[in-house]
Amino acid sequence: MKLWQDKVRKVVPYTPGEQPNRPSMIKLNTNENPYPPAPGVRSLLDHFDEDRLRLYPDPACRNLNQTLADYYHVSEDMVFTGVGSDDVLSVAFLTFFNSDKPIFFPDITYSFYPVWADVYRIPYETKPVDENFRIVKEDYFGGSGGIVFPNPNAPTSYYENLSFVEDIVKNNPDVVVVVDEAYIDFAGPSAIELIPEYDNLLVVQTFSKSRSMAGMRIGYAIGQPALIKAMNDVKYSINSYTMNQTSLVLGVEAVKDEAYFKQCVEKIKATRSWTANELRKLGFKFNEPGANFIFASHPDYKASDLFAALREKDIYVRYFSLPRIDNYLRITIGTDEQMQTLIEFLKNYMK
Amino acid sequence: MKLWQDKVRKVVPYTPGEQPNRPSMIKLNTNENPYPPAPGVRSLLDHFDEDRLRLYPDPACRNLNQTLADYYHVSEDMVFTGVGSDDVLSVAFLTFFNSDKPIFFPDITYSFYPVWADVYRIPYETKPVDENFRIVKEDYFGGSGGIVFPNPNAPTSYYENLSFVEDIVKNNPDVVVVVDEAYIDFAGPSAIELIPEYDNLLVVQTFSKSRSMAGMRIGYAIGQPALIKAMNDVKYSINSYTMNQTSLVLGVEAVKDEAYFKQCVEKIKATRSWTANELRKLGFKFNEPGANFIFASHPDYKASDLFAALREKDIYVRYFSLPRIDNYLRITIGTDEQMQTLIEFLKNYMK
Repeated sequence: MKLWQDKVRKVVPYTPGEQPNRPSMIKLNTNENPYPPAPGVRSLLDHFDEDRLRLYPDPACRNLNQTLADYYHVSEDMVFTGVGSDDVLSVAFLTFFNSDKPIFFPDITYSFYPVWADVYRIPYETKPVDENFRIVKEDYFGGSGGIVFPNPNAPTSYYENLSFVEDIVKNNPDVVVVVDEAYIDFAGPSAIELIPEYDNLLVVQTFSKSRSMAGMRIGYAIGQPALIKAMNDVKYSINSYTMNQTSLVLGVEAVKDEAYFKQCVEKIKATRSWTANELRKLGFKFNEPGANFIFASHPDYKASDLFAALREKDIYVRYFSLPRIDNYLRITIGTDEQMQTLIEFLKNYMK
Repeated sequence: MKLWQDKVRKVVPYTPGEQPNRPSMIKLNTNENPYPPAPGVRSLLDHFDEDRLRLYPDPACRNLNQTLADYYHVSEDMVFTGVGSDDVLSVAFLTFFNSDKPIFFPDITYSFYPVWADVYRIPYETKPVDENFRIVKEDYFGGSGGIVFPNPNAPTSYYENLSFVEDIVKNNPDVVVVVDEAYIDFAGPSAIELIPEYDNLLVVQTFSKSRSMAGMRIGYAIGQPALIKAMNDVKYSINSYTMNQTSLVLGVEAVKDEAYFKQCVEKIKATRSWTANELRKLGFKFNEPGANFIFASHPDYKASDLFAALREKDIYVRYFSLPRIDNYLRITIGTDEQMQTLIEFLKNYMK
């Protein structure tokens, strides 16, 4: 081994999930939206002035932030934009979790939390979800260096109501509480409405799911101005110009076309109801899903077997070979047609 | 002060440089390319399938990396792509500079180096450039936790030849040496040709200058596969999907149209020669510029006065109120017409 290798940061080598992309396949493995982005995006691409690409983008992302601020009825200095919610969350970890005390997050949750903690050398402690995979809120009352949890949680899809979230925020006045709401538009009210009362609450959302823009990499955080300023200070120190010219322009359209956005969300929720019903008829077990996916297990069929059988038919769902959840499948809600094909396959398979 | 503020990472608050963008202005302050991106970009925007935007991009950036690999005659596993060279350099700092020994870089150099070191808590030591603003290579021979320097250096614009770079790399077998070649296409041979011989050499370049794509945020690093793998391990831990679908597609075109690229670079070099000559006739002092900017001072006029006078005429150049360089202007090379306007103004001003 070469000596320079001593100085290389040790991380758990992570291999990104497979992103196969054959037109024939049914891709229900990464919680993408089955519907295209807002129709106005086409016209923006057609009229995009390519000469602008030679110039640096606006580092403060003012147009996009103002559009989000208007949509959520907050001021522009309460919005932070980044390269997907992964970038936003990573900046939040780097900014707010500087303490000798461990941060707390659930044991079954978004897999990036322990990875960011490791990369930035932030101590952490996981709190087990209960036997129904629900977060136990009292576990998070005090004693930490910071809190982060998704609502709805991933990969369980379970949504907790606002008084549950508020209890956690209220019981942690001395640390920042980050609520990761990647899937909130498919669930219930957002914790954004608690922000006026709590200066330690940061809510993170994304364009990747409900806004059909996983490919544009846009995420954002909303919080009181002091939190957003602290994040901008760190962001400007690392890379001032993270959002490229096309993201800044196309992102605005995705927010402005509220009618299209709501229509897609409602379609996905209706398809989710139908799919949940059909899966239950087939004997699958799960609580009410809050996100654009269902996290289900079956008493008579091993999840790993189902995963492999589906994959052979070019139907991709997600399977995690991890403690407590290794008999579950995470199934993204696609179009009605895609879900019908999935259910037909399962019906035949279980005959 | 609230207690959660104790846990906020302390950074030097950085305010991004002004990016005014009025059609009438002459913008020579951020080293952008005056020419639009490759003509094929227009057609790619016209034919871009917006439905792709709902899907995650390829986290491994294979098409773009392969295109760069072909261009530089290296293998794909020797290329790392990020959100501008700032992202690439920041990942390199986080990946390679984990040591109790300080990293070394010049005292007059790219302003982000000390900022990344602070954010990631990397100790550092600056090495003064000599009285002609040249890097003193012997200062970098051993004793550090890592080395980073730009070639050509910024904001001086001075290029050092390959044997100079090789001496630094050769004398540091136990640490990674990062050569930041943002402006190399306007200068001389790239250190990429040294890579087969040195497993500790990482060369970083960007699409923001010579490839007219500051607005797309694309940077890249080239090094032996072990270095690139270490960076990917860290990148995938922070955010697997940093490069959006439009960057990945448009970036390929910027590399493939080599004829257009070379033509733009040659035009800028010719304009630089003319401008340098005119500035010298007016009494400005500077050595041979290597980048797409000239870093000049005048014995009879204060740089801050010239900066203010130019700005009043809507001609923006860059002025740094910093030790050793506070009597210099950094002037980006624009079009012939823009530079003629600049020179005409200076001629009148100095009459």
